[in-house]
Amino acid sequence: MLIIGEKLSIIAKRVREAMLKRDKGPIQEIAKAQWDAGARMIDANIGPAEDGGEELMQWMVRAIQEAVPSPVCLDTTNAKAIEAGLQVHDNQWGRPLINSTSNDPERFPILELAAKYNSQIIGLTVGKGGLPADAEERCAIAAEIMARAMEYGVPLEDLYLDPLVLQIATSQDHALHVIKAIRMFQELNDPPMKTVVGLSNISNGCPRHVRPIINKHYFALLMYNGLTSAIADAAEMGEVAKTIDIITGKTLYAHSYLEM
Amino acid sequence: MLIIGEKLSIIAKRVREAMLKRDKGPIQEIAKAQWDAGARMIDANIGPAEDGGEELMQWMVRAIQEAVPSPVCLDTTNAKAIEAGLQVHDNQWGRPLINSTSNDPERFPILELAAKYNSQIIGLTVGKGGLPADAEERCAIAAEIMARAMEYGVPLEDLYLDPLVLQIATSQDHALHVIKAIRMFQELNDPPMKTVVGLSNISNGCPRHVRPIINKHYFALLMYNGLTSAIADAAEMGEVAKTIDIITGKTLYAHSYLEM
Repeated sequence: MLIIGEKLSIIAKRVREAMLKRDKGPIQEIAKAQWDAGARMIDANIGPAEDGGEELMQWMVRAIQEAVPSPVCLDTTNAKAIEAGLQVHDNQWGRPLINSTSNDPERFPILELAAKYNSQIIGLTVGKGGLPADAEERCAIAAEIMARAMEYGVPLEDLYLDPLVLQIATSQDHALHVIKAIRMFQELNDPPMKTVVGLSNISNGCPRHVRPIINKHYFALLMYNGLTSAIADAAEMGEVAKTIDIITGKTLYAHSYLEM
Repeated sequence: MLIIGEKLSIIAKRVREAMLKRDKGPIQEIAKAQWDAGARMIDANIGPAEDGGEELMQWMVRAIQEAVPSPVCLDTTNAKAIEAGLQVHDNQWGRPLINSTSNDPERFPILELAAKYNSQIIGLTVGKGGLPADAEERCAIAAEIMARAMEYGVPLEDLYLDPLVLQIATSQDHALHVIKAIRMFQELNDPPMKTVVGLSNISNGCPRHVRPIINKHYFALLMYNGLTSAIADAAEMGEVAKTIDIITGKTLYAHSYLEM
């Protein structure tokens, strides 16, 4: 299970302020905390970043990779900012991950960047016409994205399919649709397609004390069903990931398994 | 999900002392705490109880049912103690559950008691010859127990199949065998067979701080795979049960779902 540390998001006030002031301190502290908790990639979510996104993404990638020996997940809708980030990303720690393309024609050109820079890329299974209704529609869209990836020269093993986790508070039936989609995505290719979710979306809008409880149990069920990776808080999810790996026999039990 | 409150076991020092002194206080306090935390049956585990088991079980059943409006799970290898418990059990709060019969010929007569007293009964999928090797062997034994139940006049809907949870610290591969057995047991009849586990067995021998973590995640995966009931600590597992019911859509989401 690859945990992509999620805490460097422009939505968080402290992170937003650090981005605005170009203050590396908080950015590097958070990246290091995620790394120490087991994240092996760090998500850099700079939002739409319409003004100055290129320079901001480059600054973020450099700040993160100065602090931790980790690849970065370049998380923005601004294609130019993604390309700028790819140009400075230090691949000695692993290849970057672009977040994301989809089945919306406006998002196709992002695939060109993945091919050009030999980057991995997330394919979010939504199209231009609104949200997918169920697991089957997510699969149909995934197949479109896979075809497009091959057309653009992106190997399928570099594509992470994202079924789009919706908030349980308003879209309860999608919680199971997404689990089913994770199972079905794996069947779309051999070797199985890689998968990723934005985990904390599940508990968006839920009371604060409820959020980690829902996040953890949802993560456990997704892992059990074969999820490859998650954009998530490693500090919160490390324990879950290690325990599910023990139960499913992916790692050998030791009394100290939580500390490893 | 029926949680059968597990805390009234002779293995716990405080409970053993209360049993010896016939001190209802601690017994009723624990039963009430389990009930308040959501247990809807209380396990009364008096051990082998070779001396005075009949009177002890009757005292336990009465003490529990004075404190909470709950049926009791009669948990002992002593058949006479079980019959004594059945004689005083107040069925107005639900029918009792005998723990347990198995595929060991010595345990067959327990089925007679279930038929005679119209009680529910647990069928532990072990035979005389040691532990089952995998899910398939558990199923083969389950089929034997089901045939025996019908022979003794116990309806299959009164039989709870127990796949025998083993400790993960020494029998790691059985963690998945048991999950698979829970899925397979349901296929053995239509309507699906009911299932039960002794949940905390999974973490027997693990460090104290690790136990609730393994218990909770294992419980979540078992529930996801269709488990009907568990002998477990309701105070520890209520949150898990409610959250999995939300994720799987068995109950409708509300911000206050953990308090309901």
